[in-house]
Amino acid sequence: MSSMEETVKQLKYNADGLIPAVVQDAQTKQVLMVAYMNAESLLATIRTGKTNFWSRSRQKYWVKGESSGHTQDVHAIRIDCDMDTLVIEVTQHGGACHLGYYSCFFRRLTDDGQWEITDERVFDPDEVYKS
Amino acid sequence: MSSMEETVKQLKYNADGLIPAVVQDAQTKQVLMVAYMNAESLLATIRTGKTNFWSRSRQKYWVKGESSGHTQDVHAIRIDCDMDTLVIEVTQHGGACHLGYYSCFFRRLTDDGQWEITDERVFDPDEVYKS
Repeated sequence: MSSMEETVKQLKYNADGLIPAVVQDAQTKQVLMVAYMNAESLLATIRTGKTNFWSRSRQKYWVKGESSGHTQDVHAIRIDCDMDTLVIEVTQHGGACHLGYYSCFFRRLTDDGQWEITDERVFDPDEVYKS
Repeated sequence: MSSMEETVKQLKYNADGLIPAVVQDAQTKQVLMVAYMNAESLLATIRTGKTNFWSRSRQKYWVKGESSGHTQDVHAIRIDCDMDTLVIEVTQHGGACHLGYYSCFFRRLTDDGQWEITDERVFDPDEVYKS
């Protein structure tokens, strides 16, 4: 086993064999999305330089941008003190959010308990995801 | 029930009633830590303006900084498109990491599969956590 495979294997995965990955813009540090990886998708991310995840809802591997073309080029992979969470710094092509926003975190809580949209759409999801 | 309580109740919690919260520096956007909240600790966070979490290992509420004094003042609370992950923008007092670093993500993966420490300690954990 390579040193990289051993390092990836030694992370602390949850009961489903997954580790959460916070994806942020390498330049501005804006948080774009949070998704889950297993050891295989993390190794594919390292090998290809593009983010790969495990979809919990669809139970399959998933290359970010495979339908939209909005891939993420990996600049750095960070681990926390407990070895159970990743931060991935990327260059995001297009937008990370399937609703058309650059970041999935486009809403902010107001003092009266509403979710206020603070960001502008960067693409039209109907156009990008049309079959 | 207040509008805030309803909004908090409507988030998508996991099977254990928890939602992950990515905590980032409000100014630099550096990711400091990822921890878990339930509805009660999120409401306490909103009410007090300091981050409150649920500790999965200790099964108890936890005010960030309760032993170290390194509290987090909340500036903004964001939610993602799926309503199942929070981003909390804070001013961090001291450092977020119990190992003495400003961020828990103080290590970066190298090309040969090692975790390289990229940050400097901002406090001495032996000093801060002494009984």
